[in-house]
Amino acid sequence: MQQPVIILVNPQMGENIGATARVMLNFGLENLRVVAPRDGWPNPKAESMAVHAKKILKKAKVFKTTEEAIKDLQYVYAATARNRYMVKEVVTPKKCSSEIYKKIEKGIKFGIMFGPERTGLLNEDVVLADSIVTIPVNPKFYSLNLAQSVAIISYELFQKNQKDKASKISYGKSQLASKKEILGFFEHIEEELDKKGFFKTKELKNHMVKNIRSLFLRAKLTDQEVRTLRGAVRALSEIRKKV
Amino acid sequence: MQQPVIILVNPQMGENIGATARVMLNFGLENLRVVAPRDGWPNPKAESMAVHAKKILKKAKVFKTTEEAIKDLQYVYAATARNRYMVKEVVTPKKCSSEIYKKIEKGIKFGIMFGPERTGLLNEDVVLADSIVTIPVNPKFYSLNLAQSVAIISYELFQKNQKDKASKISYGKSQLASKKEILGFFEHIEEELDKKGFFKTKELKNHMVKNIRSLFLRAKLTDQEVRTLRGAVRALSEIRKKV
Repeated sequence: MQQPVIILVNPQMGENIGATARVMLNFGLENLRVVAPRDGWPNPKAESMAVHAKKILKKAKVFKTTEEAIKDLQYVYAATARNRYMVKEVVTPKKCSSEIYKKIEKGIKFGIMFGPERTGLLNEDVVLADSIVTIPVNPKFYSLNLAQSVAIISYELFQKNQKDKASKISYGKSQLASKKEILGFFEHIEEELDKKGFFKTKELKNHMVKNIRSLFLRAKLTDQEVRTLRGAVRALSEIRKKV
Repeated sequence: MQQPVIILVNPQMGENIGATARVMLNFGLENLRVVAPRDGWPNPKAESMAVHAKKILKKAKVFKTTEEAIKDLQYVYAATARNRYMVKEVVTPKKCSSEIYKKIEKGIKFGIMFGPERTGLLNEDVVLADSIVTIPVNPKFYSLNLAQSVAIISYELFQKNQKDKASKISYGKSQLASKKEILGFFEHIEEELDKKGFFKTKELKNHMVKNIRSLFLRAKLTDQEVRTLRGAVRALSEIRKKV
């Protein structure tokens, strides 16, 4: 069965990457992806913290951008404690893990993104996610350590996995679009909109791109729907292209 | 309302003590006790890892022995991943937290003990506990980092606390014996048994003390029952004492 992928976006401290690997293995997760780690890769501090989970680091995949890291996935959660004022579903770790295993049964490829220690995920990264997962914490001190956040979500995934083990079957019926297809569509439509002068200023562009991406992500597009949308964008912009 | 107490027994690394304080505050827990920390107290590494949770460290209580640390509590869990072959109830973190809040409503004072990084709790400490709490993990790699274990149990406590907030009332009906009373009784009966030559060898003594303590702890004695038992022990040993 396809396992959920843990994605660390711009992690700063090797110790936290190592502690993440260790706790992933504690809870039976083995797929780690790392986006642009601050101190490069491989990271000796990560290896020393990972203890017996060095193999998780060895087979971790490293990417330059978040987009690259999620391309082949079909559903992505952003782990964040702060309200992002985006129209996105926000779930608890418990809800997240039960959703994940329901969708994994259908063959959907899943990832959960965690941001850097100091800031958490940037809005540009959160907007790429389908849903937000928020660990309920003390509102007076909500800043969880990176590896602790991974621990709690991995723990919930493992509890759910254990409980459902008997009934878990993998079958590939669903045709939810991959992130590569979705991102391809975003680039396409944004480029076309840009050419048309749709975005008045850089500030407005950032804002609107965020809203557009959020809106389409909430729709949970299939690959066929993405092809249809791209066809529509192409058709709409055709005249301009011929100029 | 009385909060559950987190007890670190012989912690080795200051970093883990600090990370424990931080995650306790994340989940609204403020009562930390530390038994004989390897590197003394206060510990600068703990303080630097605690970030904004330094106040937890400042008001932490430090003890020389586990017995001292649990004296005023009435119910103690031992967090351990390994099977200890003792006749003690073993619960999951979820079960543990729902039990704790049910008992806290009755005014019972609670603690959860965590052992040192390298070995976990020693059997002598586990035997002092009323129940064992075990985090379900990958059986092939069950060694959780100390602060991660505290994180997961604190997380479950917080979830339960949030859910039950509306209905939580503290009332002091229960008369479960305090650990001080229980330990007093243990010392009393063991001393008397020793005087009577009940323990043939040192090895046998260790073994039998463990079994006796386990047996009485499973009974969840009230303070009145402890007084009765001590009276019984006193009465039984009276003749000998008069000699």
